[in-house]
Formats: sequence, structure tokens, C-alpha cells
Amino acid sequence: MHIRLATESDVPTILSLIHALAVYEREPDAVQLGESELRRDGFGPQPLFECLIADDEGEAAGFALYFPIYSTWRGPSIHLEDLFVQPSHRGRGIGKALLERVAAISIERGCGRLQWDVLDWNTPAIDFYRSRGAVMLESWRIMRVTGAALARLAKSSPPGT
Amino acid sequence: MHIRLATESDVPTILSLIHALAVYEREPDAVQLGESELRRDGFGPQPLFECLIADDEGEAAGFALYFPIYSTWRGPSIHLEDLFVQPSHRGRGIGKALLERVAAISIERGCGRLQWDVLDWNTPAIDFYRSRGAVMLESWRIMRVTGAALARLAKSSPPGT
Repeated sequence: MHIRLATESDVPTILSLIHALAVYEREPDAVQLGESELRRDGFGPQPLFECLIADDEGEAAGFALYFPIYSTWRGPSIHLEDLFVQPSHRGRGIGKALLERVAAISIERGCGRLQWDVLDWNTPAIDFYRSRGAVMLESWRIMRVTGAALARLAKSSPPGT
Repeated sequence: MHIRLATESDVPTILSLIHALAVYEREPDAVQLGESELRRDGFGPQPLFECLIADDEGEAAGFALYFPIYSTWRGPSIHLEDLFVQPSHRGRGIGKALLERVAAISIERGCGRLQWDVLDWNTPAIDFYRSRGAVMLESWRIMRVTGAALARLAKSSPPGT
């Protein structure tokens, strides 16, 4: 097993892993991005994310996709957006190795915090993360405004307030 | 009331607003940043966040601090890290105006999603956000590894896997 930083030629692989994770998260139709968007957003002059790929027996067995965020309590931090290992490659420590590598990158970059989101029914993942030193923020919830609702909210903003 | 983009000279004001928000969130000692870190992180050559300040009757009445994030389902998005209005300036639509302005900035930058975190006991905030078109992701929880636990996790990463 070998972990490496993804390059532009990995875009089709990354997209197929993103789709596989969406299926696992019971949202098979949620992915609205294609290869051209991933290429533009991840491999242009100002990348919006970085991605690690774990190769295992000649296949892309899993991936970790992350980007910098900021905490007004702690300073520069890293958000792990996706961490996924193909079912046929599980039980070999690949997820653990990917998470550890993202933690090492966080430390290298002076980030004192690494965080990510988890589905509350995904007990195996939660137990795994806790065994690696993570804590769940029990009282926090994520809120989101998207698409047409976001456009409506934006339009309410009076120019030049 | 007037909303404007913060500049470097606002750093002391931003820090005092961050402290006021931490008190409201019942974590008065959580802020580990000082003015020099905020200056470095927000107002250097590669800023990690942007900040809006709402001036009201000659005072900094509130702020919104945000930065770009990435969704592997939706693409470029904005995370609103902090939104806060000083208690003495509430009830005048300042929080609403700040949220709308961040939504407008999201749309201008081609982001199809704006999101933020909320404490589950903060019912007035949750009701306000819902009234503006936001939805709560009921099943998602935030996990985090910080400080010494993050350093331990990083050290487990074998070089050159």
C-alpha cells in the first residue's frame, strides 16, 4: 500500500471515488461535479483542495480530500472533506494510514486542528475516529443554504448598506 | 447601519468581537489567538479569511467572518465561521444584513452553497436561519482532533507509505 498526492491525471479516479462515497452515504445522486470542474478546482493555479490517493495492489483503494480552513479560536486548521476506502480494500489499515497522513500534513503546516463531518449512524467510522483521538462536538449542528434559497438570500442584500 | 469589508486596522475590533462571541457561546477562555495572529492570517499576502464589519451609530456592532471551502458534491462554497451582533445593537436587522451580504458574496463568486455551524441550544439563531432559507443537517456531526492528540496521530504516519 502506498499513499501519494493526487495529480491532474487522477481526476477520473477521484471522481469515481467521490461517487462511491456518495453511494455509501446513501446519496447516490448527490454529486453534481464532473471531471472538468474537479480539474479546474483542484489542479489549476489556485487549487481549492488537495487529495491523497492510496494505491493498493495496483488499484486506487481509497482517498482523502482536504483543504485549509480557519478557526477564530485556534487559527489555521485543516478540514477533511472526504475519507473513503473501497469496500474490497477494507481491513488493511488504509483509512487509518490516510487519516494519519492528513494529520501529519496538518502538523507540517502549523495547523493545530483537523476536523471533519460524520453521519451520526456511521458507528464504525465514529468508533474508529475516537480510537484515533478525535472527539465529537455533540452540541453543534451544520446549517446550509443552497441553490435557489441562497440566490434569494443574496438578492435581499441591499446594495451599499 | 453600514456594512464594510474589514481592513488591517480593524484587527483589534475583530478580536474583541471574537471574544464577545466566545462569551456568548459559553466558552469565554477558548480564544487562543491574538492580534498578531489575526493580522498575519487575515491581512497578509494570502489571507485565510475575510471579514465584514457592521458599523452602527459609530460603533462596530457586529461582524461576519468567512472563507472558501469545497464540496465534492457542489464545488466551491463558502463557510461562515462567525456571525455575531453585540447585544446592545440587536433587533435592528444587523445580523440579517450581514448574512445577506455573505450570501451575495457567495453568489458573486460562483458558490452554490453557504454553510455554517450552530449550537443546538441556540434556538433563536436556528429559527432566524431557517426563516432565511437555511436547513439544518440533522444527521451530521463534527469530529475534531486537536493539539497533542493531533500530534500523536501525525506521528503514527509512517514516512513514505
